[in-house]
Amino acid sequence: MTDTLASDIAQAPFEGPEKLLEIWFAESPAHVPDAVDPKDPGRTGLRAVPRSVWEDMLDIVKCKVLSVVEGAELDAYLLSESSLFISPHRLILKTCGTTLNLLGLPRILAIAREQANLPTVHRCFYSRKSFMFPERQHGPHRDWKYEVEFLDAIFDNGAAYTVGKMNGDHWLLYMTGAAAPPSRSSKTPRSVPRPLDLKERTDSTIEILMSDLAPDARAPFLSAPTDLSPMEHAQALSESIGIASIFPASETVLDAYSFTPCGYSSNALIGSDGYFTIHVTPEAGWSYASFECNVPVPAAHASGAVSDARPDLKTLIRRVARIFQPGRLSVTLFVSSDEDEDEDELSAVEAAQKAFKAALTLPDKLEHVNGAGEAEDGGGVVNGAQKVCYRRTDKINYEFEGYELAFASFELC
Amino acid sequence: MTDTLASDIAQAPFEGPEKLLEIWFAESPAHVPDAVDPKDPGRTGLRAVPRSVWEDMLDIVKCKVLSVVEGAELDAYLLSESSLFISPHRLILKTCGTTLNLLGLPRILAIAREQANLPTVHRCFYSRKSFMFPERQHGPHRDWKYEVEFLDAIFDNGAAYTVGKMNGDHWLLYMTGAAAPPSRSSKTPRSVPRPLDLKERTDSTIEILMSDLAPDARAPFLSAPTDLSPMEHAQALSESIGIASIFPASETVLDAYSFTPCGYSSNALIGSDGYFTIHVTPEAGWSYASFECNVPVPAAHASGAVSDARPDLKTLIRRVARIFQPGRLSVTLFVSSDEDEDEDELSAVEAAQKAFKAALTLPDKLEHVNGAGEAEDGGGVVNGAQKVCYRRTDKINYEFEGYELAFASFELC
Repeated sequence: MTDTLASDIAQAPFEGPEKLLEIWFAESPAHVPDAVDPKDPGRTGLRAVPRSVWEDMLDIVKCKVLSVVEGAELDAYLLSESSLFISPHRLILKTCGTTLNLLGLPRILAIAREQANLPTVHRCFYSRKSFMFPERQHGPHRDWKYEVEFLDAIFDNGAAYTVGKMNGDHWLLYMTGAAAPPSRSSKTPRSVPRPLDLKERTDSTIEILMSDLAPDARAPFLSAPTDLSPMEHAQALSESIGIASIFPASETVLDAYSFTPCGYSSNALIGSDGYFTIHVTPEAGWSYASFECNVPVPAAHASGAVSDARPDLKTLIRRVARIFQPGRLSVTLFVSSDEDEDEDELSAVEAAQKAFKAALTLPDKLEHVNGAGEAEDGGGVVNGAQKVCYRRTDKINYEFEGYELAFASFELC
Repeated sequence: MTDTLASDIAQAPFEGPEKLLEIWFAESPAHVPDAVDPKDPGRTGLRAVPRSVWEDMLDIVKCKVLSVVEGAELDAYLLSESSLFISPHRLILKTCGTTLNLLGLPRILAIAREQANLPTVHRCFYSRKSFMFPERQHGPHRDWKYEVEFLDAIFDNGAAYTVGKMNGDHWLLYMTGAAAPPSRSSKTPRSVPRPLDLKERTDSTIEILMSDLAPDARAPFLSAPTDLSPMEHAQALSESIGIASIFPASETVLDAYSFTPCGYSSNALIGSDGYFTIHVTPEAGWSYASFECNVPVPAAHASGAVSDARPDLKTLIRRVARIFQPGRLSVTLFVSSDEDEDEDELSAVEAAQKAFKAALTLPDKLEHVNGAGEAEDGGGVVNGAQKVCYRRTDKINYEFEGYELAFASFELC
């Protein structure tokens, strides 16, 4: 995805699948120490740290900032290799290729401790898909075993999981348990009265990781920007293939970049603290696209929902899958849980699994209308006329302390 | 568990956790070729193979037959290292220590092909808990990676899973997909009219794998048989600590063996084709006990169920956990599914998860009665007065083609 010589395309395969590090230093923006008396409203906790400090950290990881958009509660950095999201209480670092993602972790912890008065980690998650070219990785990323050892050396309450087929496509997850609440003392900011919204927000992340993209889906990403700037080219592309309208355009602030000779990245801010991010490696042989989003969407809309609302989970997955037309994909939903599992109603992960399956294995009404984009879901659609059918190859649900995970993988029939 | 010098106990740790190989050569006993015209009713398919042939196979695996009980549809062999179960259509080989379980597989396939006219594998499952002493294993068992390579060289449709924490206790599973139905031809036995019960039976296996047994629970297994024979000693022990009454004694045929200097194994036939099997490694430092059972039990009895019926899942787990008092345990239920998942009712695995949790984390009424064995479940109980409490450390549900798996792990609070 980084700019390289055109002659290198065929020679050097690119590792699209990203390393994803997400660190929560507090339960919510309201829990950071300076939330009670902010110098600059919204710019508290990690968001008060200067950009140059993050750039020094990114030097260790081996990537550069290309662009940034600032939302009410979230800064979204577009990187030379994927994305960085900074909230007052949380940092998300997603990097692809042969970047040294985990080597940035000790520096991130030091920055949080020394520059944001956030000395403890509330929760940490590290995950990635199995690499296509593991032999090209460096440092701890040469093997999942080394990544786990690296993390276990930092955290004493981490659990590592291999999700899906060990001898096939799978997804790897490391997560720490919830930190014990710090003891209350009059010296800590926790002893002051809290605003009403201190209840932990529902945390929800969906990832759609796609491989073997169809030639028609890869084609738009293979042309390098010539007359247009990398950002203008990417913006036009995002609008033409429907990325800009996955969520209602009225609440989407899109920051996109087209690489030379090929490749694409975008961050989108949705509302005050929502985001989605898309990264595309379009070359045949190692084509890959990822979609990640933290905007909570309902598993299914009640019928009669207006089409300019946020999509439900099924519609969201269909919109993304139609854009990239993958031969294989995995879908994960990671959602905070309320531990109230004794009711016999469908759990969040089971509801999500039904939406995954409906999105990818049931007939799509769009296939029967003339003209893409005219269907009931009104989404950004370019390939709606193509008849595709997936079969599910794995369905796994996990329940962790405070979180639930739904994982499913699919491949073309 | 094998007989060794008493002086060796402290020096040589024993690997209690078993390697479990289960091979289905047909969907049911009615699907084996000679089922339509049996020479000896009940003794069809694999059950028509002479014992000496299995013993030659067991020589490769490095274990010996100690005893056998024959049921209406099942032969249960007690081995020097665990158990072998032979049905007309299915073989289950469970071996512990440093046995070479998988090296028996090619011979088993040859025996089925050449001596039972069963040339194809319907499904194969191989599973084990993570080893305590992996460095003591031999051949493919030195690493899960090698075991998967060994199996992948034999099967072209196998999937391997790491279930639970990679960097902690976990359970490893390899399973093949359902074989494509063979094409019908007039030469195959499948072209003849089938009896009515050809519908695949519900297949259900529960395993309870227990570590760090309490001293009180280990003690009965540490005394070697002296005045009594190994089988008489084990039978008396089974009755005194409640193993003989996990299921109603009236339908339990128990075959048990006490090892010198210590250790215990038993097979039980329940009804015509049900079994349970228990293996105990009682030494401090590597104490371990396993319970495996294929008798389908309801997730929960309707209230008012009579106490001499088969236990429900919750009661079954409680009875086993009370006997062995483990510090850590995992519970798995592997059950064939009917693919009819669109109903909103609780799935079999979710119902099982509720039973697991209720059995191990909810207050046990037994604790409040005077005198063990007097409680409503009427089970074989010796340690009912002991107050124990577990917390769940993992809950994972898998849905495979034709099967579902519920996995949960627990540890003492």
